[in-house]
Order: sequence, then structure tokens, then C-alpha cells
Amino acid sequence: MDRRGVVKAMAGATLGLAGANARSGPVNAAEQEKRVRAVVDGYQTAWNASDMDAMRALYDTRVHWVNIVGMHWQGIADVDRAHRAYFDQMFRGVPITLEAIESIVPIGDGGSIAVIRWAVGAYRTPGGHMSPPGRNRMSLVLMPHGDELRILHGANVEIVAAAQAFDPITRKGD
Amino acid sequence: MDRRGVVKAMAGATLGLAGANARSGPVNAAEQEKRVRAVVDGYQTAWNASDMDAMRALYDTRVHWVNIVGMHWQGIADVDRAHRAYFDQMFRGVPITLEAIESIVPIGDGGSIAVIRWAVGAYRTPGGHMSPPGRNRMSLVLMPHGDELRILHGANVEIVAAAQAFDPITRKGD
Repeated sequence: MDRRGVVKAMAGATLGLAGANARSGPVNAAEQEKRVRAVVDGYQTAWNASDMDAMRALYDTRVHWVNIVGMHWQGIADVDRAHRAYFDQMFRGVPITLEAIESIVPIGDGGSIAVIRWAVGAYRTPGGHMSPPGRNRMSLVLMPHGDELRILHGANVEIVAAAQAFDPITRKGD
Repeated sequence: MDRRGVVKAMAGATLGLAGANARSGPVNAAEQEKRVRAVVDGYQTAWNASDMDAMRALYDTRVHWVNIVGMHWQGIADVDRAHRAYFDQMFRGVPITLEAIESIVPIGDGGSIAVIRWAVGAYRTPGGHMSPPGRNRMSLVLMPHGDELRILHGANVEIVAAAQAFDPITRKGD
């Protein structure tokens, strides 16, 4: 395949995926960081207001979510329903606070993978266990919709405090 | 921007990202599943053989990894070093078994996000805690290098058995 053919095939692949998304070409690192921060700020605001409509608006329709105890929800209807159930049961009034956007790694077509560190207040689980204040690391795969990013995948991991001293890389708390 | 301009911009964005990757155009779902399965099989084989060279070969050089207790390793050197340390300390001889590739969601440029469910044998943590046999859900962001996929991001979450009965979506064990 000559260069013209390669370019055509790649453009086809990109356009084929664009579908509902209306992608808008290359994005520089500063602009991408701004877009990631907008999602993260939106997430924090939606969480702290228990505003599940605002949270739903952050999702790509194809979103998958793996929550902190390993449940896997597939598609916006289930991800939305599960979050509403858990805010009714335990998260309403439990504060989250952004500690850091630790990394932003670009993927194709203006998307990014971001790792976010959150502080989370205490809450009582549906099983009756009292979870003390702690910290989570959330991996988000973010894909563009026009000029903003939406969440295509979330995986949220508890930062087990007692384990952090054994991190082979940092050998410290974070 | 006219259509020709849009195509040119998108091709530019794709080619700009291609860099070291040598992308190869659109991939159908069956072929993509085969490529995902090859990475997952490779991961299982490398893990069960404690073969950290084989595991390293699965990574994109830009790989990030969030492990099951929330440590965040950034770049292939640290991800590789951390895995070698943990295989020396605790994982050598601990079996993992694939339970399911639960989902494959395509992202741009022939990449995918896959969620994998693993059964993991018992092991003793560096802190001396005995972790019983259990299950994990691993989110992998996979990006193409030629005709194969490599791991650009991994986030591994313990499936907390006692919590699964409270899943608002499944209301069952998985």
C-alpha cells in the first residue's frame, strides 16, 4: 500500500469510529489537560451534590465501570442505575476531594487515560460495614465528544494504606 | 473546513500518534477478540511461569499500572521493576486462571478496553497478611503494535466476595 493508500485507510478507520462523536482533530497537551480537568471537576461536583443527572452527563453511552469492590457494570443504563442505587443507599453526603490528577496518557483520536487520586469520607456499606475515610485511585478512559471528554471506562481501586510502605517503586505513602 | 480538510486533519492526527506503533487500519470484531485473547493468554502464561521477560513484552513502553492495593506505576521501567519485585516476594508459584474476558470495547486506532476476570491463588503479602484464594477484575487498555496488542494501562480490582450480593445490577455472585 502506498502512502496515499495508508493515509486513506487510516482516515477511513478514524471516520468509521467517529460516528456519534464528532471528533475534532489533534489536541495539544495543555488543551487536553484542561479537558481532563473539566471531567474531573464535573465528577467531584456531581458526586458532592449527589447529582446523578450531572454524573450521567459525563458518561459515554458505551461506558463500563468497575467499582471499588469489583462489580462490573456495562453500558450507560446500568452504570447510571447502579450509581443512583448506591447514592440512595450510602454515598449521599459522603464527600470526595480531588488530591491529584496523577497522569494523562494520550490515546488515539483525542482520547486520554487519566489516573485520579481522591480522598473519600467514611460511609456505611449496604452490608453494614463502616468504611473509614480513605483514598482511591481511579483510572478513567476519556473519549472526545465535540470539544469535551466523556468517560468510556472507569476502574476504581482502594489505596490500601497498610500496603503502601511496600510499594517497590515509591517506598512511601503515595 | 471542507471534507477534504477534515479527512486530512484526522489522518494527520492518526499518523501523528502512530509514531513507533505502525498501525494497520481497521480491525473487525472477530480479529480484535483474537488479538485481545492473545494478550490475555500471554499474560496468564507469563504469570504462571513467573516469566517477567515475557510479561514485559506485553507492555507498551508508556504503560501505567494500578495494582490491587492502589499503587500506581508509571512507564515500562517501573511497571516491570515492580512486577519483578512482587514475583520475588510473593507471586512466584501463585496460580492465576482466566475465568472470562467479560467485555471488549473498541477505542480509536484499533485499540480496545477489555475487562478480564481472574481466579487467583492464595499468597502471603509483604506485610505478612495471608490473602486467601480470590477473584480479580482487571481493566486493560490495549493498543496496537503492528498486528498485536500491547498493554497501555492496567487497573486491577479485588472482587470483594461479601459485597457481590449487593450489586444493584446483577444481585448475584458475578
